Amino acid sequence: MTAAPSTTAAALDASLLEKLDAYWRACNYLAVGMIYLRDNPLLREPLKPEHLKQRLLGHWGSSPGLAFMYVHLNRLITTHQQEMIFLAGPGHGAPGVLAPVYLEGTYSEIYPNKGEDEDGMRAFFKQFSFPGGIGSHCTPETPGSIHEGGELGYSVSHAFGAAFDNPDLLVAVAVGDGEAETGPLATSWHSAKYLNPIRDGAVLPILHLNGYKINNPTLLARIPNEELTALMRGYGWTPHFVEGDDPMTMHRQMAEALDGCYAEIKAIQDQARASGEANRAHWPMIVLRSPKGWTGPSEVDGHKVEGFWRAHQVPLSGMHNNPAQLQQLEAWMRSYRPEELFDEQGRLIPELKALAPTGTLRMSANPHANGGLLRRALRLPDFRDYAIPVEKPGTTRHMNTKPVGALLRDIMAKNLDNFRVFGPDENTSNKLDAIYAVSKKLWLADYKDEDADGGELSPDGRVMEMLSEHTLEGWLEGYLLTGRHGFFATYEAFVHVIDSMYNQHAKWLAICEEIPWRARISSLNLLITSTVWRQDHNGFTHQDPGFLDVVVNKNPEVTRIYLPPDVNTLLSTVDHCLQSRDDINVIVADKQNHLQYLDMDAAIKHCTKGLGIWGWASSDQGGEPDAVLVGCGDIPTKEALAATALLRAHFDDVKIRFINVVDLFKIQSYGEHPHGITDAEFDSLFTKDKPIIFNFHGYPWLIHRLAYRRTNHKNLHVRGYKEQGNINTPLELAIENEIDRFTLAMDVIKRVPRLQVAGAHVMETLKDMQIECRNYAHEYGIDQPEADDWVWPF
Amino acid sequence: MTAAPSTTAAALDASLLEKLDAYWRACNYLAVGMIYLRDNPLLREPLKPEHLKQRLLGHWGSSPGLAFMYVHLNRLITTHQQEMIFLAGPGHGAPGVLAPVYLEGTYSEIYPNKGEDEDGMRAFFKQFSFPGGIGSHCTPETPGSIHEGGELGYSVSHAFGAAFDNPDLLVAVAVGDGEAETGPLATSWHSAKYLNPIRDGAVLPILHLNGYKINNPTLLARIPNEELTALMRGYGWTPHFVEGDDPMTMHRQMAEALDGCYAEIKAIQDQARASGEANRAHWPMIVLRSPKGWTGPSEVDGHKVEGFWRAHQVPLSGMHNNPAQLQQLEAWMRSYRPEELFDEQGRLIPELKALAPTGTLRMSANPHANGGLLRRALRLPDFRDYAIPVEKPGTTRHMNTKPVGALLRDIMAKNLDNFRVFGPDENTSNKLDAIYAVSKKLWLADYKDEDADGGELSPDGRVMEMLSEHTLEGWLEGYLLTGRHGFFATYEAFVHVIDSMYNQHAKWLAICEEIPWRARISSLNLLITSTVWRQDHNGFTHQDPGFLDVVVNKNPEVTRIYLPPDVNTLLSTVDHCLQSRDDINVIVADKQNHLQYLDMDAAIKHCTKGLGIWGWASSDQGGEPDAVLVGCGDIPTKEALAATALLRAHFDDVKIRFINVVDLFKIQSYGEHPHGITDAEFDSLFTKDKPIIFNFHGYPWLIHRLAYRRTNHKNLHVRGYKEQGNINTPLELAIENEIDRFTLAMDVIKRVPRLQVAGAHVMETLKDMQIECRNYAHEYGIDQPEADDWVWPF
Ligand SMILES: Cc1ncc(C[n+]2csc(CCOP(=O)(O)OP(=O)(O)O)c2C)c(N)n1
Ligand SMILES: Cc1ncc(C[n+]2csc(CCOP(=O)(O)OP(=O)(O)O)c2C)c(N)n1
Ligand SMILES: [Mg+2]
Ligand SMILES: [Mg+2]
Repeated sequence: MTAAPSTTAAALDASLLEKLDAYWRACNYLAVGMIYLRDNPLLREPLKPEHLKQRLLGHWGSSPGLAFMYVHLNRLITTHQQEMIFLAGPGHGAPGVLAPVYLEGTYSEIYPNKGEDEDGMRAFFKQFSFPGGIGSHCTPETPGSIHEGGELGYSVSHAFGAAFDNPDLLVAVAVGDGEAETGPLATSWHSAKYLNPIRDGAVLPILHLNGYKINNPTLLARIPNEELTALMRGYGWTPHFVEGDDPMTMHRQMAEALDGCYAEIKAIQDQARASGEANRAHWPMIVLRSPKGWTGPSEVDGHKVEGFWRAHQVPLSGMHNNPAQLQQLEAWMRSYRPEELFDEQGRLIPELKALAPTGTLRMSANPHANGGLLRRALRLPDFRDYAIPVEKPGTTRHMNTKPVGALLRDIMAKNLDNFRVFGPDENTSNKLDAIYAVSKKLWLADYKDEDADGGELSPDGRVMEMLSEHTLEGWLEGYLLTGRHGFFATYEAFVHVIDSMYNQHAKWLAICEEIPWRARISSLNLLITSTVWRQDHNGFTHQDPGFLDVVVNKNPEVTRIYLPPDVNTLLSTVDHCLQSRDDINVIVADKQNHLQYLDMDAAIKHCTKGLGIWGWASSDQGGEPDAVLVGCGDIPTKEALAATALLRAHFDDVKIRFINVVDLFKIQSYGEHPHGITDAEFDSLFTKDKPIIFNFHGYPWLIHRLAYRRTNHKNLHVRGYKEQGNINTPLELAIENEIDRFTLAMDVIKRVPRLQVAGAHVMETLKDMQIECRNYAHEYGIDQPEADDWVWPF
Repeated sequence: MTAAPSTTAAALDASLLEKLDAYWRACNYLAVGMIYLRDNPLLREPLKPEHLKQRLLGHWGSSPGLAFMYVHLNRLITTHQQEMIFLAGPGHGAPGVLAPVYLEGTYSEIYPNKGEDEDGMRAFFKQFSFPGGIGSHCTPETPGSIHEGGELGYSVSHAFGAAFDNPDLLVAVAVGDGEAETGPLATSWHSAKYLNPIRDGAVLPILHLNGYKINNPTLLARIPNEELTALMRGYGWTPHFVEGDDPMTMHRQMAEALDGCYAEIKAIQDQARASGEANRAHWPMIVLRSPKGWTGPSEVDGHKVEGFWRAHQVPLSGMHNNPAQLQQLEAWMRSYRPEELFDEQGRLIPELKALAPTGTLRMSANPHANGGLLRRALRLPDFRDYAIPVEKPGTTRHMNTKPVGALLRDIMAKNLDNFRVFGPDENTSNKLDAIYAVSKKLWLADYKDEDADGGELSPDGRVMEMLSEHTLEGWLEGYLLTGRHGFFATYEAFVHVIDSMYNQHAKWLAICEEIPWRARISSLNLLITSTVWRQDHNGFTHQDPGFLDVVVNKNPEVTRIYLPPDVNTLLSTVDHCLQSRDDINVIVADKQNHLQYLDMDAAIKHCTKGLGIWGWASSDQGGEPDAVLVGCGDIPTKEALAATALLRAHFDDVKIRFINVVDLFKIQSYGEHPHGITDAEFDSLFTKDKPIIFNFHGYPWLIHRLAYRRTNHKNLHVRGYKEQGNINTPLELAIENEIDRFTLAMDVIKRVPRLQVAGAHVMETLKDMQIECRNYAHEYGIDQPEADDWVWPF
């Protein structure tokens, strides 16, 4: 028996390396063309200023390195028929990604007017980073991209999100050495400790040590290799170095390194899959140390460019008036020998074309990178089965998030390969722990005996807990973008940690709405809990409901905010969100014991409307109200109800209309947000002229921002969190921020003409009650039982 | 000659270790007392339910480990008379910090009613995490704290900020092993690459491997020691392990490790200081692997607690109704043998008292931790010297941030030991590079030849550039909190990366306002630049002016926002901010070429008012305006001016009042924000009834949120960024978001009754002009020269 030639030997066949190099040259040629040219794409005539774009935009520095990776990954794909996708951490190096995407034909298939010919190439060049064209990053318009790489730091966590539950997928991810300095990236290396080699795919990071950022060297490029090796080993990886600048030597090294990595990955997977035992693996990764702006101008005006930070953006930019620079550009472009690469029509020659994978094996056409194509709707149990009974509104208490834990548990049971739950070490704290009955927390690092009693850990758990909101959010985004479903619960105050990630994901989704070929993906569902109003253990630093203010700034097509006040409304909301697509659903609900208001039937109706009058809590039936009281959020609703009760106790005939708001965007005008109600509806609910006392969960001005166009805005008085807090009892905190029952009742008295004078005595009583509450809290550390145990009395 | 006994030998004297242990027991006793007791603090009588607090709040788990560190650091201080401060990353372990702070007397000095006697101890216990008392973290009320540790992740960067330019200071920092999983913490280990051993102090991290977070094991505690060692070495540190659970063995180990670390630190410093050569050092650090909840109940109700995550918060919590648990608590407290530790009065016995440092050597009384005490005002050059001439408003252009670079340069020259400039690899991009003439970018990692040409690197540079907004912000905060000055410039879109850090710092400052003994510190000055309106290279992901929406939610006492429209107003603003204290100053100013409006004299007046009418741009002198046009921000001001010019070109007699706003909070009502103007002033400026077209830099609704109480709010029409962007020319982007001259002019026509009909033809013309602009941009990639070169024509 003679041994088949080893893959490596095949890989390293010199003529193949030559071809890879030619393919890479084609990529680099296109990358330069994108940055500079609007005409003469194939340099069929000498380069003239009028062939150039007027404004030269884009980033050259990262591009050749990214293209180098892409070309070599293609070899791996074709050799092994391996499903693979590619994420470019430094997404500003998009020319290095767009080039191979175009060469493998996907671009022209999706955008026929960017065909594989001279005209197509011209259009392809011109549109790059051009008004009316495409952005200069790996934007959603880029076939194969699930990672734009505008804001740096999330490439590795996105890659892992894509790899989870995709056992046959290999996710290659280029990590900028600058990007690697960011916090989110620095901790995301630990993601490997959450990769189960049996059921998950693999992630192959390529740390792109091109040595520089915009204007600085990078830290990781300026420490000895031993130190970098220690770092990566310490993170749990096995690094392979590919270092140099001579293309042919580097091609050989890179091919060898990739073969080595691939073999290691397969060995890890085969071993685990054969044994059925999932252990933490020391996955391979590549450190690619190559010059920034590799193959570009080595010097410009006497200053080093290639292999220096000067290569970051557009290395030559004075050509419009500088013939020498124009020549330098032409020489640079011709150094790739385009005439050898493209045929008469401007198509890549067949010999090179043959190097790329075909069909959906092309990284640019892999359906995982257009995850909506693969998305299957969740199998959902009937959320009504988790309802809690509510016989009389406002008289019983329940932990609002707890039944969500049970719902998630059963969803998990029905969707064991495409649903995950994420939380930063807080799922138990957030009362979602019922889920562990079906799926534990994924844990592949070491175990101890004591874990058996309550640890809830397992190597095949599907609940993802790491103390990094960044990593969790990145995983979840990657998971959703590749067509799956997820649920992320986190403390309200610290969701601000991922403000910027929210922004970027919302932007991604907004752009996708405009791209017909992007299939719709599952919404990102974010439960923010342990909210401002119940920070017993933690105090002021944990009080911040301001994430909503960040949320509302993004495109209304993709933003949703819900504040269900009790269990049944929360269940109905969660069910709705888990079915929705292309949105970011932010659900605010506290984990503590709260009054329950609506039985499931009423809850569903209420949530469907999004906001509405609670007849049982109102006293204005058949007439005009004296005032409208609004509760939005759990505690604010309770306090508003208690205020109503106080008012009715003191003024027999007071007519209060009580409204509860679940779907915050209902407040905004129709036309401003798809959920906004019309002015007629708003006027009917909130009246055109009666005082509205709006008790809000978050910062009060957010309501004004949403409602300022409404007829009755001048009578809208909003109460909410005003940064007055410390260690407080719940009622004391409410009082400090004036969302408490007493303040609200006084608000009504002050605003309703017929109560203004008559109510003076009641006002005194209410003020006294406030003082008593505070004093009691300071003495006993708890709220007066009668306040704490308050129930709806009517 | 006989050798003096070595420090180590002295340290390890067994009786000293016994005493350290006793001191530690006293700390642990107090920590437990704080969590549980409101009476019977010294257990002079058997513990009864009425001695307990009703609600048991706080975190035990971290506390004994923190106290352990504190006690041992005290030994180092007294042995070497070493100036030291302590930061507790897991600030929720405050009982472990408050205890030694109280024992060394500082607490009672500052808060006399928490004296060092039984009554004082009772009050000290009761106030902890109690309404009306203090929070459960290392809040600003904690003497010696500069790091609250509520939001996890910033302990190490804060520590480095404190150490910079404090050559004699040693900053010890406890890092939670959970905290170490966060992104910000994970990258902050690299801070050591920015520590200059000659001019900076040292940072001694103690990675607190207590193994658990709230409900989970930690990653770093569940990998082999070799892997952790590799990780820390890879980060550039030299780890020393202290591992175990037997107190006496651990005391010896810890003392030895600290002696070892101290010797290494001194050797590094001595060598560098003697040679005058600053190199990157591999600083020592400690890995302290000890049980979570060490010395606490080992089991409760049959479940493991000590050395498990169950120890995180309050391990025993059923005592009110469970006599067995009450007994367990009493036994636990008595296990520390309080009777041996405290005398009749309830004071720590003198023998133990003697272990603590005295005076300002106490970490709780070190003035560095109350940095305002040490703060010297900056020596500032006259900012007027950097003025650019403006002979006729709106006719010349300049890069707005560039002269700030020159100003910073000269400030740097005058303050070479207490001023630093921070930026994430963007200072050159942001046009601040003039500063390098005086001080380079700090760089201690490897150098290459090419750095000499334009690298601007130096081991003693004072410009701090790392691609981590988190680390920079943390450094800056630490630097300010210890009494120095700084300036941080960053891209507008990515300042969201540090939203949550902003929130936490604002909360810290707001609380400090209420604490009389906290001396005032320098404001945090944040220049946000490369703004939404000029994202030529980058597009949609780089467009996000929403940081301001985060800023305005925090306490008005500490928040300031400025949007100077040109160079001279920016210079005046920066000068003002650098002198201010206890605020967070957010300055929004773009780096590109912009029209200049005010000469320095006018700029100073304008900035002093904060907002005002620009007479030269108005045509309503001596009469009532038809409309008020407002510009706030550079590009919006230009567009609003161009709109004014268009209107005046088309309507001879149109009366426009032109207002520019620099100080955003002027818009808010007096009483809501200290900068707010009165309603009378507002009415006079903005009229009570004329249309106001407000062209704003950020998201438009922010202006409504600030102005909704104003008389003329119903006529306020705000334009701003609405998430409509991609790759656009500046004018095209303005058009997409309707802040452009044409839209604004049309806005006026639509709102001014006498123009509504007469203006119809003009409206058509304006719409045509918009379309032409867009078409031109899509064709040529740039704006029409006449739009781009537009100057104020009157
Ligand atoms: C969070 C964040 N901060 C700052 C920037 C601005 N920025 C864009 S590119 C870049 C340098 C990136 O360097 P590197 O990751 O090494 O990429 P490459 O060298 O491949 O261009 C910076 C700082 C950003 N995009 N994101
Ligand atoms: C950014 C952030 N996310 C989540 C939390 C909630 N939280 C508080 S304590 C804690 C666990 C901390 O573990 P560790 O750092 O190991 O501290 P220790 O074991 O000393 O208590 C968590 C997740 C937080 N405070 N900050
Ligand atoms: Mg780089
Ligand atoms: Mg821990």
